[in-house]
Amino acid sequence: MTGTMAVADVVSLDAGDPLAPFRDRFHLREGLIYLDGNSLGALPRATGDRLAEVIGDEWGEGLITSWLGASWSTAPRRIGDKIARLVGAHPGEIVATDSTSVNIFKALTAALSLRRERPVILSEATNFPTDVYMMQGIEAFSGGRVKAVTVAPDAIVDALSDEVAVLLLTQVHYKSGRVRDMAAITRAAHEAGALIVWDLSHSAGAIPVDLNGANADFAIGCGYKFLNGGPGAPAYLFAAARHHGATPILSGWFGHARPFDFEEDYDPAAGIARFQCGTPPVLGLAALEVGVDLMLEADMAEVRRKSLALGDLLIARMQPLCDAYGFALASPRDHALRGSQVAYAHRQGYQIAQALRELDVIADFRAPDILRFGLTPLYLRYSDIVETVERLERVCATRAWDKPQYHQRAAVT
Amino acid sequence: MTGTMAVADVVSLDAGDPLAPFRDRFHLREGLIYLDGNSLGALPRATGDRLAEVIGDEWGEGLITSWLGASWSTAPRRIGDKIARLVGAHPGEIVATDSTSVNIFKALTAALSLRRERPVILSEATNFPTDVYMMQGIEAFSGGRVKAVTVAPDAIVDALSDEVAVLLLTQVHYKSGRVRDMAAITRAAHEAGALIVWDLSHSAGAIPVDLNGANADFAIGCGYKFLNGGPGAPAYLFAAARHHGATPILSGWFGHARPFDFEEDYDPAAGIARFQCGTPPVLGLAALEVGVDLMLEADMAEVRRKSLALGDLLIARMQPLCDAYGFALASPRDHALRGSQVAYAHRQGYQIAQALRELDVIADFRAPDILRFGLTPLYLRYSDIVETVERLERVCATRAWDKPQYHQRAAVT
Repeated sequence: MTGTMAVADVVSLDAGDPLAPFRDRFHLREGLIYLDGNSLGALPRATGDRLAEVIGDEWGEGLITSWLGASWSTAPRRIGDKIARLVGAHPGEIVATDSTSVNIFKALTAALSLRRERPVILSEATNFPTDVYMMQGIEAFSGGRVKAVTVAPDAIVDALSDEVAVLLLTQVHYKSGRVRDMAAITRAAHEAGALIVWDLSHSAGAIPVDLNGANADFAIGCGYKFLNGGPGAPAYLFAAARHHGATPILSGWFGHARPFDFEEDYDPAAGIARFQCGTPPVLGLAALEVGVDLMLEADMAEVRRKSLALGDLLIARMQPLCDAYGFALASPRDHALRGSQVAYAHRQGYQIAQALRELDVIADFRAPDILRFGLTPLYLRYSDIVETVERLERVCATRAWDKPQYHQRAAVT
Repeated sequence: MTGTMAVADVVSLDAGDPLAPFRDRFHLREGLIYLDGNSLGALPRATGDRLAEVIGDEWGEGLITSWLGASWSTAPRRIGDKIARLVGAHPGEIVATDSTSVNIFKALTAALSLRRERPVILSEATNFPTDVYMMQGIEAFSGGRVKAVTVAPDAIVDALSDEVAVLLLTQVHYKSGRVRDMAAITRAAHEAGALIVWDLSHSAGAIPVDLNGANADFAIGCGYKFLNGGPGAPAYLFAAARHHGATPILSGWFGHARPFDFEEDYDPAAGIARFQCGTPPVLGLAALEVGVDLMLEADMAEVRRKSLALGDLLIARMQPLCDAYGFALASPRDHALRGSQVAYAHRQGYQIAQALRELDVIADFRAPDILRFGLTPLYLRYSDIVETVERLERVCATRAWDKPQYHQRAAVT
């Protein structure tokens, strides 16, 4: 149906879109179609003013007194409580700080401290690399006590032996966009006596997430994708209240029960605060909070509905290009199994992504051959999807990907 | 001499101060005397505009392309190279990222990986707490393989047994301001077969530091004190070039040799890049770079000379208050042994710091009884020191510290 949708129908979809007003809350250059919000979310218009206030008033005028006076010291927990509303967590179960990678380390080592007799950290091959790299670092340091194991994505449940201390899985796969069944897999992990750490980097703010509904143990996620927190934004960590007695290995002073008493020995704070480590990154947190606040204004059910409709429209419109130019859908066609992105495999994926940029479409390439279209319902229009496929067809029709300048791979894409 | 210095002499000191023009490069509220730049440095005037540019142009307009186009991905190394010039390191030996605490973890575990047969991480009791807390977290995780040991400050060299893998010391003590002899202690550590990690949080930007001159192994430091990088600014890590083969435990994707090839296994980058972990905190790094650039404009020998003169003036002026009101100098009187701060012990230290704030002097309190005056030569005047002591005398003469509101300790001071 959507594949043959007339232009007029797309216009009416945009006109009837209840999320349409959100687009004006973002800075988006005229003419640009940005399909990479799942790598770096767009800039909320409110962010610049908020940062100017934090810099000029809170830092410039308030100086050191702003740790209390401007609530800098509690920002990680305050923003954590806001993120909690997006992912089905309770207040006091999430803290926003550090990078996703560092939070993976904290969550995994906390889980290991609760399953000391079990050696294995399990994940899937093809998981986002930093997840597996962090596992490998823990293994290297453990002196043989911990083993980092990856298995094929479909073999995860079968691999849940009584050796497995903790399973680390990403809810929405960074390349394919496939959604894992959080409740079912968490149940399987628990039945095997293991704990689970969910990576929400591609799900929080993109699909409804219910951590406590699924009885999840730990979770971590990224602040700069669907939460629009800015480049390298602080990440976040969820620990279910029942695990707040776990031992943090990154036992820095901001996780201490009384950091400003400057005691000699580490005594972890009660609750989620112990999962902090160093001094909170105030500027990054301020930008993240603007993005999270904006996301909280949207109805997540509406976000999901529009995300799926955008994806369905893209897949339908792409069908003729698949037939003519060899694109192969690399995401689930059944939209219930799909996050907020659609990926295609194409041998010239990298070159096509480059050629699209010259036509002012930013999509993403993920090695070796994946062209990834991120769908951000707060600032994408149905007409953007139609226009994207039209521009892509121009690239294909002229074989623009053959231009020599596209055949030199850059270090960062 | 300086104790009885006439007001006119102080005016001429300020008039002849070659660093005086730097004061205008900072935002400082009229009337405020800020003696806490060793806790949070003041705001450089250039920071707001630079952040507006990063947010509006680089993020808002450039979006994902700014990782290359605006050199976000290399910012940790570029800024590291700049910090290197302040602390006697070579280009390619410092990376700016993560918090001080997280970098302590990286440096200590890297050192342990180079001394696998030795179990002890040694430090001094009374070190800044997060240093020792991070040691204790490593011990807790190691399953008995690593021991975190602290000894009295004067017993450090004697404690360098053949059990010690790595010694973690702060060059300038956060309370007393006492300066450690970096070259002598590094030599003693090496003679004992141990490695050393120097914490430069209170020395970089405050006193001349020569890491390679001292043959230091690793160092870490804070971005938001004398470097004026803003609240919770990214910290930095130094690893001497000879240690770039050490294994990072926080093995995140930004430390990988080819992060954007998304390989399955961790393969650490050559050089200092492997000491990165997650995605760089771009906004925090941008603010840090403004502070570092400003510091690089100053002649560090001149900074040191003025810092000592400010401290000597303060100590001289404080002498009558010591006699009359019971302040006890808690920093070395010999200024060669003193960093860029002067501390006094007083039973009412906390209350006095609070009372001073009502007279628009911000000094710092450190439990249990230390009143700490941070000396930042780029934006403090000699007249500020004289005025501080006059205001403090008013506090003492009226026993303003007895006000009931000062007797309730806040969580963060």
